[in-house]
Amino acid sequence: MSVVTGTLVILRHGESTWNQLNLFTGWHDVGLTDKGVAEATAAGHTLAADGLCFDVAHTSLLMRAVVTCQLALAAMNQVALPVQRHWRLNERHYGALQGLDKKATAALHGEEQTHLWRRSYDVPPPPVGTESPEHPINDPRYRLLPPDVLPATECLADVVARVLPYWHDVVAPQLLGGQNVLIVAHGNSLRALLMHLEGVSRDAIAELNIPTGVPRRYRFDTALRVTDVQYLGDQQAIAAAAAQVAAQSKA
Amino acid sequence: MSVVTGTLVILRHGESTWNQLNLFTGWHDVGLTDKGVAEATAAGHTLAADGLCFDVAHTSLLMRAVVTCQLALAAMNQVALPVQRHWRLNERHYGALQGLDKKATAALHGEEQTHLWRRSYDVPPPPVGTESPEHPINDPRYRLLPPDVLPATECLADVVARVLPYWHDVVAPQLLGGQNVLIVAHGNSLRALLMHLEGVSRDAIAELNIPTGVPRRYRFDTALRVTDVQYLGDQQAIAAAAAQVAAQSKA
Repeated sequence: MSVVTGTLVILRHGESTWNQLNLFTGWHDVGLTDKGVAEATAAGHTLAADGLCFDVAHTSLLMRAVVTCQLALAAMNQVALPVQRHWRLNERHYGALQGLDKKATAALHGEEQTHLWRRSYDVPPPPVGTESPEHPINDPRYRLLPPDVLPATECLADVVARVLPYWHDVVAPQLLGGQNVLIVAHGNSLRALLMHLEGVSRDAIAELNIPTGVPRRYRFDTALRVTDVQYLGDQQAIAAAAAQVAAQSKA
Repeated sequence: MSVVTGTLVILRHGESTWNQLNLFTGWHDVGLTDKGVAEATAAGHTLAADGLCFDVAHTSLLMRAVVTCQLALAAMNQVALPVQRHWRLNERHYGALQGLDKKATAALHGEEQTHLWRRSYDVPPPPVGTESPEHPINDPRYRLLPPDVLPATECLADVVARVLPYWHDVVAPQLLGGQNVLIVAHGNSLRALLMHLEGVSRDAIAELNIPTGVPRRYRFDTALRVTDVQYLGDQQAIAAAAAQVAAQSKA
């Protein structure tokens, strides 16, 4: 095999309306704010400046990722790119926290418990019941998925387990076949992927935040080991964005 | 959703040349014996008699399953059916046992250890090295899969973990969309699936054998719960075939 392994860029969607309201979102489907639209477009300009030509893009089934991808591709003048969408790239399901205010949750349950739900590896929030509108069994877009695979809540370990088959079966073969791949997804589905790609430990991932709208580029060797990884764009702005995410659950 | 859930048939491939020689096979790629060809054709006749019209078939990447599927479809006069092939349906990788005689292994390591390797839920055989021709990293058909997902050995728990994403993402949505589905695969990939579908325990699966060339038919309700399951064909012959599989590692 003399094919050069493709390059991967991961991109977290721009600010959503529930990000702006500081609510736990998860699988709840909300749109982008004006700021989110601007972030998505700016990410596209950053990628255009990097000069990479993509062969395929992937998003979740949630519109904040889908629209971020469209806007970024438009800014790159690559709107015709094939886009694959899959539930395995969805944000972590936040269970009974979905729709709650992050600071109010911290005030009610304490910062420690809230941080545990947000950042522990294997402690999921309380689940929603199957009668809840927040349970994906009641959302027709998942109607052809078997009920036993639809989450009522998830911890990061659950997200890792459901993201990896998509990585192994869909994305990795494209990269090994020489395609350049863009994945536009969510804070936690991308943390799960980053953890796998970069060998980040369960402890270290707790404090690792991915900023919205900042492309992270991976280059690989022929065995798909990472040889180079970096955020693209203004490095000072990137550090400031990551710090802002970390501050969200301070009461 | 008023769509009637599709019907599923699982079919274990007919006798292979290494089944006949009583060797551990796993991911080693061998053809069918004359008996295996006859079993595959007979399975097709059994299915034709049942009157089911399939919409899609699935096999592994191993030719004993691929050819069994072709022969069964030919006997059903449904050769034009779309067939999807996937490594997740492959037989369990038998590690360093691949190519060894089952009875000789039992004589060398004892019947108890050999039975443990064959039937325990979570004890894999010793792994093969990446230099071994039995390691899938050396087989070009897996060249676009990332090396970290290619097994050097597997226990049944490993097979369950890698079969279920294919079930959840590919097969189950077809059934929930009303398609009738045929899966032609292997003793252990089908045991993994059967365990999930029928809620068989880790202890009970140890003694459960699927006979070669005997179709097992599942009907489901709209939530994909099994409402009816049975082997199709001559019930006495089916019991005899299952007993023969169980006797293979007696020294």
